[in-house]
Amino acid sequence: MDYERYDRIRAVQWQRDHLRLLDQRLLPQEERWIDCRDAGQVTQAIRDLAVRGAPAIGIAAAWGVVLAAQQHVSLDLALAQLRSARPTAVNLMWALDRMKARIAAGADAAALEREAQAIQDEDLAANRRMGELGAALIAPHSGVLTHCNTGSLATAGFGTALGVIRAGVAAGRIERVFAGETRPWQQGARLTMYELVRDGIPAKLIADSAAAHLMKSGEIQWVIVGADRIAANGDTANKIGTYQLAIAAHHHGVKFMVAAPSSTVDMATATGEDIDIELRDSAELLSTAGRRTVVEGAEAWNPVFDVTPAGLIDAIVTERGVIERPSELAMQAMFGR
Amino acid sequence: MDYERYDRIRAVQWQRDHLRLLDQRLLPQEERWIDCRDAGQVTQAIRDLAVRGAPAIGIAAAWGVVLAAQQHVSLDLALAQLRSARPTAVNLMWALDRMKARIAAGADAAALEREAQAIQDEDLAANRRMGELGAALIAPHSGVLTHCNTGSLATAGFGTALGVIRAGVAAGRIERVFAGETRPWQQGARLTMYELVRDGIPAKLIADSAAAHLMKSGEIQWVIVGADRIAANGDTANKIGTYQLAIAAHHHGVKFMVAAPSSTVDMATATGEDIDIELRDSAELLSTAGRRTVVEGAEAWNPVFDVTPAGLIDAIVTERGVIERPSELAMQAMFGR
Repeated sequence: MDYERYDRIRAVQWQRDHLRLLDQRLLPQEERWIDCRDAGQVTQAIRDLAVRGAPAIGIAAAWGVVLAAQQHVSLDLALAQLRSARPTAVNLMWALDRMKARIAAGADAAALEREAQAIQDEDLAANRRMGELGAALIAPHSGVLTHCNTGSLATAGFGTALGVIRAGVAAGRIERVFAGETRPWQQGARLTMYELVRDGIPAKLIADSAAAHLMKSGEIQWVIVGADRIAANGDTANKIGTYQLAIAAHHHGVKFMVAAPSSTVDMATATGEDIDIELRDSAELLSTAGRRTVVEGAEAWNPVFDVTPAGLIDAIVTERGVIERPSELAMQAMFGR
Repeated sequence: MDYERYDRIRAVQWQRDHLRLLDQRLLPQEERWIDCRDAGQVTQAIRDLAVRGAPAIGIAAAWGVVLAAQQHVSLDLALAQLRSARPTAVNLMWALDRMKARIAAGADAAALEREAQAIQDEDLAANRRMGELGAALIAPHSGVLTHCNTGSLATAGFGTALGVIRAGVAAGRIERVFAGETRPWQQGARLTMYELVRDGIPAKLIADSAAAHLMKSGEIQWVIVGADRIAANGDTANKIGTYQLAIAAHHHGVKFMVAAPSSTVDMATATGEDIDIELRDSAELLSTAGRRTVVEGAEAWNPVFDVTPAGLIDAIVTERGVIERPSELAMQAMFGR
């Protein structure tokens, strides 16, 4: 397919001695870039959501290790610091483990730079492959709903779930695209709609709570989402609201696809029960766009991920292939050592 | 129960020659009152959501008719204008039909004033009765989730679903209260939390999309919502997101209660399929707090109600009594002519 047509954003850009990140907290109002000059600044950018999306977090962290190596600071410290930035996305741990293995093998800064570049390049290639595989599952004239942002902004480029949607639109299979707002950070409203409008893909934003009503209308045939961690049995942690969409999809006979690179699969985590779900500050729900919207004295409960059990997932798409109706056995066959 | 302790807000206040409305668009940041001096201003306040909540809309409209009668303007015109303000809530039509019947019987302005006052007083009494009936269904040590705002702000006082929650808390049956934000207007975040904090009822706000994850945690035993229209078979139109909550509740074995005055029941509407669902301007999703949050060129789909089929409802509570597992037969027995 014509990738130039659909994929023109690169939110994580290595600049040889620093890392440039497109600040995703300000989009779409403002395209401001942040220059991270050491591993601490990269950690902070991950923690503060300036860079977000499981694959993009992993890539940024790998570049953070390169900065530490260039500056001859403690690599153990840099690895520990970066690892602590966010708990749920396993790609962060995966990328850091890969860098750590190279360090253990005696790699110098230049070799680590090549490794980080490889992580980034492989992510883009994986996304393009997933796009093909995922789009092939979708019948012509379909409508789809996605959640959060899983596009070029969340990855090295093209995207995971949004990559499947790009490929499905390009192949003429997807005719209607809907995106959920994704409270509280509005990644769907702010980022996914930004990518779709830039690509000229007609799409409609919906309130997260309107998904079931949309499904009942018959407008969509697939829900397509990314993942922050996929357990050994196929249970999938992803942005809060994903589980609710999966239940509603199941109720309506709408199919449910998870698209994520194999680096998101964590065979060391047996089931979704074992996944650490990040609880963020209640302030994220009590204020909107920097302005307090809820009465003083109010409390909030703000889990930012949830777990969708494998039984509600019709297909897990990675660059290695498609697993339909995921089970421990099928996962083991594709991702076991 | 001690109603003074729990119910101190009156958002719709008749002032003998004008109607004072607490502007619900500005809460909780600002408590600004609007004085409506004719039926046109009341219509506008309903259309613009300065007053909202199915029972409150009906009451405000009744007072609009009184203003028209006092000012000797065409009552037919006033009725038609007010009726057009919003399409989904049947209480609006019900209150106007009641006023129209009095007009047809030759009532003067003073008699219409008494009728509007009766509509308002009966709503408060109905809410208190529903509170008792609904709370009695809830087992001790329960947690509940509600959606949108169904409290004093949405009614003549006390509230429908929020009235049940107030009564359940007062009776020591409800120990945990959660409120969904209710995008796009944030009635849960802005209004329900405002009422709960004022009442000193400990509660937590959640993103609408976090409800299923909350249910899985075992923290809640009931979802309790209001209604904008209940069809003859028990299908219930309510704020967008209600249907999604009902599906998730069903999936988790969490019970689902609809609390609404009998004026919300529309026996002339056979099923939910026949209910007109209001689609509002996409701008409500594209901007937040008056600020554009979504890229220019983006579109949105903004249905503000949905229909929950009777099969997903465990109990419909009105001031006339409780219908468990609602069916056409049970509805006919309680609400048939």
